[in-house]
Order: sequence, then structure tokens, then C-alpha cells
Amino acid sequence: MDESCYWNQKTFAIVTGASRGIGRTLAEKISKQMGADSVLLLISRDEKDLDSLQKAIETDRPSVRVHVGVTDLSSCDESALNGVVSSALAGESAESFAHALCVHNAGSLGDATKRCTDLVSVNSCVQYFQLNLASVVVLNAIFLRRFASSLSPVQQRKTVVNMSSLCGVEPFSSLSLYCTGKAGRDMFFKVLAKEEPDVRVLNYAPGPVETNMRTQLLHQSWTEEIKSGGLGLTTEMTCDRLMAILAGDSYASGAHVDYYDP
Amino acid sequence: MDESCYWNQKTFAIVTGASRGIGRTLAEKISKQMGADSVLLLISRDEKDLDSLQKAIETDRPSVRVHVGVTDLSSCDESALNGVVSSALAGESAESFAHALCVHNAGSLGDATKRCTDLVSVNSCVQYFQLNLASVVVLNAIFLRRFASSLSPVQQRKTVVNMSSLCGVEPFSSLSLYCTGKAGRDMFFKVLAKEEPDVRVLNYAPGPVETNMRTQLLHQSWTEEIKSGGLGLTTEMTCDRLMAILAGDSYASGAHVDYYDP
Repeated sequence: MDESCYWNQKTFAIVTGASRGIGRTLAEKISKQMGADSVLLLISRDEKDLDSLQKAIETDRPSVRVHVGVTDLSSCDESALNGVVSSALAGESAESFAHALCVHNAGSLGDATKRCTDLVSVNSCVQYFQLNLASVVVLNAIFLRRFASSLSPVQQRKTVVNMSSLCGVEPFSSLSLYCTGKAGRDMFFKVLAKEEPDVRVLNYAPGPVETNMRTQLLHQSWTEEIKSGGLGLTTEMTCDRLMAILAGDSYASGAHVDYYDP
Repeated sequence: MDESCYWNQKTFAIVTGASRGIGRTLAEKISKQMGADSVLLLISRDEKDLDSLQKAIETDRPSVRVHVGVTDLSSCDESALNGVVSSALAGESAESFAHALCVHNAGSLGDATKRCTDLVSVNSCVQYFQLNLASVVVLNAIFLRRFASSLSPVQQRKTVVNMSSLCGVEPFSSLSLYCTGKAGRDMFFKVLAKEEPDVRVLNYAPGPVETNMRTQLLHQSWTEEIKSGGLGLTTEMTCDRLMAILAGDSYASGAHVDYYDP
């Protein structure tokens, strides 16, 4: 597929965890590829960083409307998520968009100093799974219900991206909650791909990217396997790869695709 | 391995979801194989069914002490779980047991009438993951910390069983939360197996067993794939298979083993 054909359309896109790291770079890249009158909804807890990103994008792409949704995905309920999506649409009809895209990028590492046998707080675990699973499930449903029109996939393309990880398919010591959440998320989006053949679903593992999360991981983890991970990728590199995979549009819906896959 | 060698020892065993279905049958079978002075902790919300099971086992095996832990794993905190395990030990030293076994069997199907796009309640999802992930993680840590002695695996065997499912490795329409939880659980126990080489960890997929959960599934699910599942296994059949796999002791720790595996 011609990349410009995939991207250069009136698009409604959500990126969670957009204030920094992969989410921020991805939001910038998506904003550059969207057609005129597109809407980009940036979700994060961090209002200040979101505001600066909004300003930068609006300067760069005046024809794209950027909406900031300051939301804590580890504690918000569905009405907050519904409200954020409604505000971003601002009365515009969902049918007016040629492409609807949701990137579930937000997530947390958990405490990588802890072994499985250290996880003795129910509340901590519940909150971890609320951020990394429950809020993803609900935002995803809200997004797809909003765009559940009678339009065909040719008239309105729908794409859902789950930011996955090698940890979603391989166990790593010191990362039990992270691995658990990522494996669960991958599976959720595999089910979504089966249930919704008109939605394109991608589980993308971005590789070892130089982000705050990776710094935290290298600082906290006690295992050599992780400590010896070497230099990471830049957010630019992994986001370029993701953008190309989406535009290439040849992945099987629901597949787990890694940065390093051929 | 000689089966009697695996089972016929002083054992401390926990079975969650023990009031009915696979958990109940498994608790009965374990009680028959335990050595004298063993302790069997049965956990479930359902006091009445637990009490009747306790009486039946104590009549059958007077040398086994059965402890009932009435606990709602979808809402309890770690102090409740700690309390239940302490009560079951009743002051006995953890080192006095030759075998410590925890079977994470409790779980819920979720609402199989719902598609991914119907999951719009954060609280419902949070509660689902509390029962099916968070409580499992925390009970597991409490159990292993209690038996974290300096004894070698020869002096004290430790086994953890996760009741998994084919849904933990394959996506099924109408079962998004169930698949997500089971995939997450499998991964958690794979990490545990890596972190704790002295603990034997098994993810066991029991096959399609005739239980209340399967009745609910066949009643609720809208998909032909599930409706056409045919006759199920009895709880006897799948528990016999699990008991033999444990006693055979040849599985790789952390592996996912299905009833139908050769």
C-alpha cells in the first residue's frame, strides 16, 4: 500500500501515554501524516507535558486539531474516558472521519526490584492491572463504540494498536507484573481481532527503547539477563517502524509483531 | 517417579475454588493421597459447600486436618489471605511439612454474552482482574513466603499449580476477559518458574470439563465455535490426569500442559 494512502486522510487518533517516550514521538509522527481536519487526542496524567506537545503539534500542523485529555488511567472510571473522547470529537460526527486509530501505549513497568514472592499487596496489584489492563479494555470499547457506524472498512478504516513487548511472549525475571499485563493485553487484542474482522488490530513490540521506563528497568532489575541488555533503540527508530508496519497493512489482524521481525 | 513417593508425605496443600467443580474433586483426590498429619486448606466464598466437603474428607481421612477458609478472592486483602494461611498452619512449623502445594483453581468466566466492545465498566474489569490475577499473585506470594525455609527441594518439595485453560493460549470470541486473565496467569507462573528454580510450577489446562462454568459458557456464548464444543470431560477425568502429571514430575517448570497433550 502507498503510505500516503493510509495516512493522508481525515483521521481521528487517540494516543495514550502521550506525554513522553514512545507515546510522545508517535503522536508527533502521526500528526505529521494525518490529513487536514484530523483530530488527535492525547491522553496522559501529565498536563504540563501534554500542553507543550499540543502547542508544538498545532504550530507544526495548523490543520490538525489537538485535544488534551488529562486522565489518570490507573484510577479513572468510564465516564471520565467517555468525557475525554466526547470532548475531542467536539460535536463532530464520527462518520466524517475516514480513519479512526487508537494507540494503547500507556503502561507502567511495576517495581522491578520485586520478585513474584514480594508481591504481597492486593491493592498494588489491583492498581497495576487497572492501569495496564482494565483501562485499556474500557477505553478500547468506548473508542470502537463511538466509531461503530454502518460505514464499510473502505469508507472508514479502523485501527487499534496495542503497545506490547517481548515481555508479552517471553517471561523475564523481575518483571512478573509487566510480563503478566503485556501477555494479557496481547491476548485481549487477539480476541478483539477475532470478534471484529472489520477492525485492524496490531500488537506491536517496540524493542528495547531508550525511555524513562528502560532507565527504571536497568536501575531496578537484579537480573543479568536484563542488565546486560546493551544499547537501546531511539523512540524515532521504533515509531518509524510502527508507522511503516501500519501503512504497509500486511500484518495479520491480532498478530504480535516485533521491531526486530523481518 | 513412583506416585506414592510424590504424594504419600506430610503435605500442606491449598486449593482455591474448592467448593465445587474441578476444585472440589481435586481437593478430594489430594486428601486421599496425602500422608498422615497433612493439612488441607480449602478456600472459597461458599461456606456451606466447603463445610460439607470438610466433613466428607475428615470422615474419609481422619489423619488429615482440613481447614476451611471462607474468603471472597474478588474483594479480600492480603491480611485476610495471611490470616487464612496462618489459621490453617495453626502454629505448626512450615518446616515440618515434606511437601507444600498450592493449587490456584478459583476463577470466573466473565460475562460470555459480551463482546470486547461491550466492556465499558472499569469497575467490572477491575474486579475481574482482582479475582483472576491480583488475588492469585498475592496468595501465591504469601504461600511461598510461608514456606521459604532453608530446606532443600529434597527435604521440602514445593509445587504451585495454576488452573489454566486453552483460552490462555488461544483467543476465543466472547471470552475476552477469560482469555486475558488466563494468558496473564500463565505468564505470571512462567516468570515464577524462572525466578524460583526450587519451586515446581505447572500451568495445567484441564480441557472442557462439565462444570457450572461450562454450563454458563454454553448458555451465554454466541459463537458456534464454543456452542459446538460437544461433550465435556468429567472433573474425575481431568483431576486424575493432573494428579498423574504432578506425580510423574517430568514437566518443565512453568510449562503449559493440556489434558489432551500426549
